[in-house]
Amino acid sequence: MDYKKYIADVVDFPKEGILFRDITPLMAEGEVFKSACDEILAFAKKVGANVIVGPESRGFIFGCPVAYSMGIGFIPVRKPGKLPRETVSMSYDLEYGSNELHIHKGDIKKGQKVLIIDDLLATGGTVNATIQIVESMGAEVVGCAFLIELEDLKGRELLKNYEVFSLMSYK
Amino acid sequence: MDYKKYIADVVDFPKEGILFRDITPLMAEGEVFKSACDEILAFAKKVGANVIVGPESRGFIFGCPVAYSMGIGFIPVRKPGKLPRETVSMSYDLEYGSNELHIHKGDIKKGQKVLIIDDLLATGGTVNATIQIVESMGAEVVGCAFLIELEDLKGRELLKNYEVFSLMSYK
Repeated sequence: MDYKKYIADVVDFPKEGILFRDITPLMAEGEVFKSACDEILAFAKKVGANVIVGPESRGFIFGCPVAYSMGIGFIPVRKPGKLPRETVSMSYDLEYGSNELHIHKGDIKKGQKVLIIDDLLATGGTVNATIQIVESMGAEVVGCAFLIELEDLKGRELLKNYEVFSLMSYK
Repeated sequence: MDYKKYIADVVDFPKEGILFRDITPLMAEGEVFKSACDEILAFAKKVGANVIVGPESRGFIFGCPVAYSMGIGFIPVRKPGKLPRETVSMSYDLEYGSNELHIHKGDIKKGQKVLIIDDLLATGGTVNATIQIVESMGAEVVGCAFLIELEDLKGRELLKNYEVFSLMSYK
């Protein structure tokens, strides 16, 4: 399927010089959204994930259907102040700006096989911080899956020790 | 299934006097998360939805699996500054504070049958603003589904002209 047909390119968003890849047209087309989720689901089965971890909020969009379909848990990774109980956190750099990610302490258990799902692999800052939190909890990251990979930002180099899947990539 | 067993009650979050119902333990238990999504899915089929609309970010958690499972589109409702293209917006009051919701212009089409899915029905401000945006686009709201309903906040009164489903409710 030609998924790129359903990605809207928006110039200068969220700030000048950034070409934003808007995934909402893909989500609005039911069969296309289902097909995209199913491809990530096939990867999740291949790597033997038994829990899905997804950064807010676009990681929820693809991660939750995959967790639902496999009957496994979904653990949200959230920005500061969103999770109500005690968390483990890590600072990270974004393509534009910086932030801090949190996971509830105890939500990921030692020995679990974690697949991290997000919409976009850019510099890899978000997924790398997520990996560090997950591994500090004693779980194994069996893969990272993305809807879109921006190749020139070389996020994949940060992930060279992990199985990486992306549904589509841009130079 | 006793879903309430998987809701963590957190006092004074996000501010003093608020008893926060934390849904992350439910999401972390794969079979429980699947069962909760399946109950909302059954309601979606009953009301004949052909598109799912969900407010960020916890609306994504239950709305996306339902859209995925039915092979229909998912339209995100987002806070200011998140959607890159032209939007239709509406201000609304939250249980604590206020905000403004946006949907991409043109993402919802005239005559579509919309099910709005969110995690929580409290005062109803979020869902009511979402309904107004959806209806201004010429679509029909065939139902509103929530994981949790806080009965004492009387959100359901605002929704008396709509089909409402909640998986569990608290006084």
